Amino acid sequence: MKIITTPASEDWKELTTRPRMDQKELANLVHSIFEAVERDQDQALISYARQFDGLILEDLTVSRQEIEAAHAIVPDELKKAIATARANIEKFHQTQQLDESTTETSTGVQCWQKMLPIEKVGLYIPGGTASLFSTVLLLGIPAVLAECPEIVLCTPPDELGEINPAILYAADLLGIHQIYKVGGAQAIAAMAIGTPTVPAVHKIFGPGNQYVDMGKTMAQQMGVAVDMPAGPSEVLIVTDKTSNPVFVAADLLAQAEHGSDSQVFLVGNDRGILEEILREVSYQLEHLPRHTIATQSLANSLAVHFDSIEECFAFSNTYAPQHLIVASEYADEYIKYIKNAGAVYLGNYTAQSAADYLSGSNSILPTAGFTHTYSGLGLSSFQRSVTFQRIDKNGLQNLGKTAEILAAAEGLQGHKNAVSVRLKNLQK
Amino acid sequence: MKIITTPASEDWKELTTRPRMDQKELANLVHSIFEAVERDQDQALISYARQFDGLILEDLTVSRQEIEAAHAIVPDELKKAIATARANIEKFHQTQQLDESTTETSTGVQCWQKMLPIEKVGLYIPGGTASLFSTVLLLGIPAVLAECPEIVLCTPPDELGEINPAILYAADLLGIHQIYKVGGAQAIAAMAIGTPTVPAVHKIFGPGNQYVDMGKTMAQQMGVAVDMPAGPSEVLIVTDKTSNPVFVAADLLAQAEHGSDSQVFLVGNDRGILEEILREVSYQLEHLPRHTIATQSLANSLAVHFDSIEECFAFSNTYAPQHLIVASEYADEYIKYIKNAGAVYLGNYTAQSAADYLSGSNSILPTAGFTHTYSGLGLSSFQRSVTFQRIDKNGLQNLGKTAEILAAAEGLQGHKNAVSVRLKNLQK
Repeated sequence: MKIITTPASEDWKELTTRPRMDQKELANLVHSIFEAVERDQDQALISYARQFDGLILEDLTVSRQEIEAAHAIVPDELKKAIATARANIEKFHQTQQLDESTTETSTGVQCWQKMLPIEKVGLYIPGGTASLFSTVLLLGIPAVLAECPEIVLCTPPDELGEINPAILYAADLLGIHQIYKVGGAQAIAAMAIGTPTVPAVHKIFGPGNQYVDMGKTMAQQMGVAVDMPAGPSEVLIVTDKTSNPVFVAADLLAQAEHGSDSQVFLVGNDRGILEEILREVSYQLEHLPRHTIATQSLANSLAVHFDSIEECFAFSNTYAPQHLIVASEYADEYIKYIKNAGAVYLGNYTAQSAADYLSGSNSILPTAGFTHTYSGLGLSSFQRSVTFQRIDKNGLQNLGKTAEILAAAEGLQGHKNAVSVRLKNLQK
Repeated sequence: MKIITTPASEDWKELTTRPRMDQKELANLVHSIFEAVERDQDQALISYARQFDGLILEDLTVSRQEIEAAHAIVPDELKKAIATARANIEKFHQTQQLDESTTETSTGVQCWQKMLPIEKVGLYIPGGTASLFSTVLLLGIPAVLAECPEIVLCTPPDELGEINPAILYAADLLGIHQIYKVGGAQAIAAMAIGTPTVPAVHKIFGPGNQYVDMGKTMAQQMGVAVDMPAGPSEVLIVTDKTSNPVFVAADLLAQAEHGSDSQVFLVGNDRGILEEILREVSYQLEHLPRHTIATQSLANSLAVHFDSIEECFAFSNTYAPQHLIVASEYADEYIKYIKNAGAVYLGNYTAQSAADYLSGSNSILPTAGFTHTYSGLGLSSFQRSVTFQRIDKNGLQNLGKTAEILAAAEGLQGHKNAVSVRLKNLQK
């Protein structure tokens, strides 16, 4: 990681450009997977498990026995930790219930929103190099709070054809029982198309690699909704003279160990601190088990020195990071500069990793600059807002004439007439 | 319109299938429009106006003079009606501000959401056979309430190269001054790509014909967000013995006059009432200025008779209509049956047209069955929720150990270390 000094603002856009894969080749591959799932149904899922992972799967469905075995295997200490995370995530997501109270916009005219759960949702839990049971909590808790009637979970099995017990335990704890051993783009295809084993859903949630992402894009083209466009995980850390270099280095590495394509930006207005952080990164990297992954990820990463904290945040807003760590004692004063970010971690003691596991907020967040337009996951991601309205006789007498004027001005006589026939009826 | 009697539930899906255009041909055409806009910029927009509408446009930008002329032309009566609609729409959308208060999920651990406006938004106002200035209010008011810093409006000019004064008046009233004379897929391309005249935006809103819709799909593939997938407008009306046939017929025709591809479903458990409604439709249709459009639309439409009101709503839930009119004195009791709808109009006096203009709720709603997963437009459509979190020393001491357990169980040592270095520091 090297330090760039005060880059000109016209260069920021290029500096913060995410590396982009060849989308066309990827699209062709994933398209062929969708076609195979459409054609061969469950058989396609079983074939891909053999072809990609060398697995002979007899059953795609996780059995009740496997779930019960998971309960026995997961250590009590971890169960307790999961319970704490769950409680906090529930607590915060419960505050996201939208107001359903009725507004009387004019006399006799009432409007309200009612939040209805999305009826069938699919949760994708990535497998790969880490067992992300925390993702089960972050996707599953809002789905359950929203009371989605059907919740389907797909996740790839390990080399023994088994699912990590913590994933099964967490899912079962939440009451999610439809769990399937399918990963990758074929899992997304299965949930979008439906097979005899894996039910089709209305909306697909969850992070994943580039194949999963492309699968979600294709699902969307088929009319199946997805949570958000996604890409590799990323963090930007803003530092100043009050940052703790040891903490910041550890946060950088926590991000870098996610995947070799993870991106890390370090920004600050104190050159000495930046240099100290980089020294610490080298030191801590030595002791990191996921050393190779983190080293590759750091190769995509950059430290940027600016004179002022305002420039640091302006640069950050251009990048629009998924995670923004404000590693400063003055973090609260800096909030006003933040225009684009998925989630913000304030102050030196807000370890992003701790916050993501159990502060209660949702760390399923947009990446790749999509924080410009998309929100992170929340309760409403699993709901639809339906507006209800009621105009009574009084209300129609009150507003009818106005509606007639508007309809006539738009040249819509039928719209006007729907009001006129009622007004006439009221005059009787 | 003919009456079908108690169709079997396994046939509902087919009965409620929307007519679908040839997407491939449409995609090719719209793709070529995007390419032309990318290549020729403003010149492409001017060429399309000439080619499609026979217009020689000298300037794509609506001038201040044109806006001021609109103020002079719009009649006072209409200005007053627009003011009433605006007040109600503002009142209801203001209630949609999300709760930004802080939750302490554990001692020393705080989370909150902050709603940030999307920085650049593009509003599309369709032209065509009706002047939809009400769409300006429904798109513009939440954009202004959300405080989006840049609001761009595109709408096709009429055969004289002018924009309907009511559209200009409504936009100016809301403080929307960047108005461009561009319509169709080329307007969407311009807002997605950006030209010297029309700025690129982050998210595009608004209804439109199939070209506009396809343009929005392409914009989305480019990474520009859109409000929702859309298709032709549609209504389903549930009736019973308490329905007023004259009112229902007028509501059906108000929907049918929207466009020849509009879809109308009439459902009810009282055959006599259904028959009376159809007689009324024929009678009222005679007097409708947009007779031809409505007649074509009614050809796509169907009346369905069921024995029970529960079946009526089950059928409606399968169709998942954009607009659901519950034309009954018992409407409130029926709310519990409603699972899928964009907006619901309750009772005999809730004329949909009046409600859409000025009840205050937003009538920009998902169509084509997308009410299964999407919400109608609201304040949050113009915002992003960013989660903030703060863990203080106390909080870290309280939760740190638990975070370490979770990180270790996921095999993410770097995540654990980011907590450990802080805990160690606190022990000093």
